[in-house]
Amino acid sequence: MAQGSTFVDESLLEKVPRWRNYLAAKLGFRNHWYPVKASSDVIEGRVVQATVLGEEILLKRINGEVKAIRDRCLHRGVKFSEKVECYTEDTITCWYHGFTYKWDGGRLCDILASPDSKAIGRRAVRTYPVQEAKGLVFVFVGDDDYKAPPLAEDVPPTFLDEDLVMHCAIYEVDSNWRVACENGFDGLHVYIHRSSELVPDTMRSLPIGHLAKSGEVEVHEAFGAPKGVYDAFANHTSIWEGKVDGQVVVTGTKRVSDKPTRTTAASLWMPCGLRVDDFPDQDITQFEFYVPVTEEKHLYVMLVGKRVDSEQDKEHFNHEFWNRWKPIGFENFNAQDIEARLALQKFYRRDTAWLDEMLIEGDSPLIKWRELCHRHTRGIQKPEHL
Amino acid sequence: MAQGSTFVDESLLEKVPRWRNYLAAKLGFRNHWYPVKASSDVIEGRVVQATVLGEEILLKRINGEVKAIRDRCLHRGVKFSEKVECYTEDTITCWYHGFTYKWDGGRLCDILASPDSKAIGRRAVRTYPVQEAKGLVFVFVGDDDYKAPPLAEDVPPTFLDEDLVMHCAIYEVDSNWRVACENGFDGLHVYIHRSSELVPDTMRSLPIGHLAKSGEVEVHEAFGAPKGVYDAFANHTSIWEGKVDGQVVVTGTKRVSDKPTRTTAASLWMPCGLRVDDFPDQDITQFEFYVPVTEEKHLYVMLVGKRVDSEQDKEHFNHEFWNRWKPIGFENFNAQDIEARLALQKFYRRDTAWLDEMLIEGDSPLIKWRELCHRHTRGIQKPEHL
Amino acid sequence: MAQGSTFVDESLLEKVPRWRNYLAAKLGFRNHWYPVKASSDVIEGRVVQATVLGEEILLKRINGEVKAIRDRCLHRGVKFSEKVECYTEDTITCWYHGFTYKWDGGRLCDILASPDSKAIGRRAVRTYPVQEAKGLVFVFVGDDDYKAPPLAEDVPPTFLDEDLVMHCAIYEVDSNWRVACENGFDGLHVYIHRSSELVPDTMRSLPIGHLAKSGEVEVHEAFGAPKGVYDAFANHTSIWEGKVDGQVVVTGTKRVSDKPTRTTAASLWMPCGLRVDDFPDQDITQFEFYVPVTEEKHLYVMLVGKRVDSEQDKEHFNHEFWNRWKPIGFENFNAQDIEARLALQKFYRRDTAWLDEMLIEGDSPLIKWRELCHRHTRGIQKPEHL
Repeated sequence: MAQGSTFVDESLLEKVPRWRNYLAAKLGFRNHWYPVKASSDVIEGRVVQATVLGEEILLKRINGEVKAIRDRCLHRGVKFSEKVECYTEDTITCWYHGFTYKWDGGRLCDILASPDSKAIGRRAVRTYPVQEAKGLVFVFVGDDDYKAPPLAEDVPPTFLDEDLVMHCAIYEVDSNWRVACENGFDGLHVYIHRSSELVPDTMRSLPIGHLAKSGEVEVHEAFGAPKGVYDAFANHTSIWEGKVDGQVVVTGTKRVSDKPTRTTAASLWMPCGLRVDDFPDQDITQFEFYVPVTEEKHLYVMLVGKRVDSEQDKEHFNHEFWNRWKPIGFENFNAQDIEARLALQKFYRRDTAWLDEMLIEGDSPLIKWRELCHRHTRGIQKPEHL
Repeated sequence: MAQGSTFVDESLLEKVPRWRNYLAAKLGFRNHWYPVKASSDVIEGRVVQATVLGEEILLKRINGEVKAIRDRCLHRGVKFSEKVECYTEDTITCWYHGFTYKWDGGRLCDILASPDSKAIGRRAVRTYPVQEAKGLVFVFVGDDDYKAPPLAEDVPPTFLDEDLVMHCAIYEVDSNWRVACENGFDGLHVYIHRSSELVPDTMRSLPIGHLAKSGEVEVHEAFGAPKGVYDAFANHTSIWEGKVDGQVVVTGTKRVSDKPTRTTAASLWMPCGLRVDDFPDQDITQFEFYVPVTEEKHLYVMLVGKRVDSEQDKEHFNHEFWNRWKPIGFENFNAQDIEARLALQKFYRRDTAWLDEMLIEGDSPLIKWRELCHRHTRGIQKPEHL
Repeated sequence: MAQGSTFVDESLLEKVPRWRNYLAAKLGFRNHWYPVKASSDVIEGRVVQATVLGEEILLKRINGEVKAIRDRCLHRGVKFSEKVECYTEDTITCWYHGFTYKWDGGRLCDILASPDSKAIGRRAVRTYPVQEAKGLVFVFVGDDDYKAPPLAEDVPPTFLDEDLVMHCAIYEVDSNWRVACENGFDGLHVYIHRSSELVPDTMRSLPIGHLAKSGEVEVHEAFGAPKGVYDAFANHTSIWEGKVDGQVVVTGTKRVSDKPTRTTAASLWMPCGLRVDDFPDQDITQFEFYVPVTEEKHLYVMLVGKRVDSEQDKEHFNHEFWNRWKPIGFENFNAQDIEARLALQKFYRRDTAWLDEMLIEGDSPLIKWRELCHRHTRGIQKPEHL
């Protein structure tokens, strides 16, 4: 593979000049923060594996702080995780020849089988900046000379708000991350959710289609702030009846109620974060991240957040998460999306598919998303990074 | 993959100028009729999947007539068959966003989640002409601007004769379709059948080799008629004894009988149909089709046909099919051919193998077949068609 | 694939001019002798399969002498081994059309289904020179015009010594052969063996690292003699304690004893043979061959040899082999090496890995090995040979 080449053939990239970088980013965008684990899954002293943008990494919580290094010895490339040897709290030793690295900074500090090597102290395995927020461990996958921006720039707005209590679940899904982003943000795909248990459970309204008006979709690209596409449903035409040859064959659920029963907006933020406002219910916000793992796999990170101002509210939301939002939201409603992504992947796994699709008016927010990503890319993951 | 490239490397094609198109047609020839199902497997109202020349299609019998469309929504490329939604008799609706197409013609007639889209009425999913004959459903895999010729041009002569009663069985076999054609037509391969149960059952003669005389093999290429290579066994030298170092080690079965006990001819017809005369017994004709499915799989369609002039004859042949020709012909004799094709495939899956083989005198009908295909190709299946 | 190209991309080869041929030899070096079976596994009259340098071969012992031919009929490329037909002692007949070849020389001597073909007597399937030694069957994988040198040039010195009694075991291991050579010869990798049962069982000393002095590693490249790299441990610095941040965390086993308890040397010989002196115990020599099978598999041939001068010594060593050296040496100590090779393979399966590794001082014998192979290559296995 030539230096600098991407995972996608150059001849295809040339055909989409307005979102070329997005098509090229089959394995994600570099120089961004990505959630890779629930904080609760990285317990003190235990070494944990993760893969992000195709890079295999190890995480360890040391004195409360999570460290991340690449899971590959510099010497002969074997994975530390084949047989973890940690002789001190702040080092990891390769099982093969005893190359020992600092978790913090990655410096090669000792070689057990060769204690006088000149390589000691001069080389370092790749490490990753780590930050924790809202119950998630975020790592920054970046170039050596790229200074990590604040996490706040890489998550949907409000995600970090202090009064927002969050609960999460994480699945691996066998589709490319872009397919997942687009399925989640797509206003038309509500069609597949018409039969979800969530609708009767929440007494909500759910149309069978949301048609964005292209001119009213907001593109956020201010310097130093999250870059995203925001689609307010108030600007939508909602479709309640599906007709074939003029006959109604499918209907949405439209309730008459004193209180609002509608999701109010969806927005998609670089590198891969979705926010859905007033979903799965009023005053709850759902966040999703679709983290690139391999070309054909992403980590599906789902969170629901609610603003609480008392311990009692917090307790109540906790209870509600386990009894409603996890089973009925994550495991029923969102499972329908997972099915859709698996189906999409069969088509989009061929890079040429991105040129063979036939988007329509209601897909305009997706095009805005692709073009936004193209304009604001900080770097594209390439074969040379693996 | 460059536009217009084939599934086979150009540098190899250049080495076989006289049958270049045949080597290129790894996934079959376009603009031909292919059998894809038994008619009895496409029952009224049920949606059935098939794959031909790598294209995934759906079949549905509507008011007795079979329709065929591509199993891929125009919008985001998902397969209709992931979850079939047919709200009216003559439409199919994509489960993802409600894109609805007419089975007849493929026109996008409605989008349930976006009823006012300008795409409605203007686009169409690919459909395939369908014709039924002799208990088989044939589809025409063609270019948009290619007018389907009569089915009679794409099947062996006599196949459509009215007084011919047919019975069929269909298997999937894991070899390329060309390997199957050549195994079936090959006059020498009778060597593998010397132990078949068919020989004692039918009291037939079976040599261990048929040597065609190259000059007497007929090549049929008249305009408007089937294109094929016809090898009359009367012109053959039959080999009855196999010798090693002058000693007989293997023998065929040669019967002395008042009535004829020999297969009289084999012929191979574009795109992929074999006819064997007086086989598996006198006055019976065996037909076989080797339909390209993927590069490494073909549909093995087998038929035996007999001319009958009474209901009693027909009934008798029906009984004979289930009790002799299916178990002893298709499942014993033909199973030996399937084994041979699987063995051939291990070699011929590498495209270079076609240059490494060492054909001999008795293989001359195969060369005539390759050259015939080269001259009369109507189109080659290429990556861009998938 | 262009004629003459190797299994490794040319652009990578250019980056390692001093060991280019070694990097190219992903599937081994041609024109060498390789052990492929234990003699005891090739019994009179039975046909046995093997694969070496990617070439599938068949072995048959005829009147005590082993013959080897390629397992591929010249005609249509099928494998004889799909259904072995041997009608005479010295021939093999292809099951498909009766092409019959002499085991000795490979000449096409008969075609059962086509007895008068002009090909008879003019063509030959590839055969391989065979030699047996020390309980192993060696085949020479060579070019047609390359005269096989004496076996003694292709095995470690002393291997063929008459007074050396040998016992062997053979495994298939899923790594490239070069990875196996380097793991075996590597002086530092003793680190992984510190916990082996062999150490207490033999009362031997075992450091956690052997540091070769680059200048004292001997390179043997005399004309007509084995080409190899010899690393005498007397020149080594032995490491007994592994430290992290100045604290001892791992120790070797250092015994005080009147008798020697140390392995004295390791040496690696073209094409793929290791010799370890005074291992697994004093006065025993371990030999290993890492025979290329496919790009991701090698045959791991292990032998222990001891000089004996009486039947009683021989009997004693035989008993010791089954009760100590096989279970504790081959199945415990060497299993640790197999694990290491599997781990290495995950990295080195990507050809670019050979440029991404970071070798240190103690790896200098490995570099000498690579350069030796580069200088003395007799030929590289290429796609065109398969």
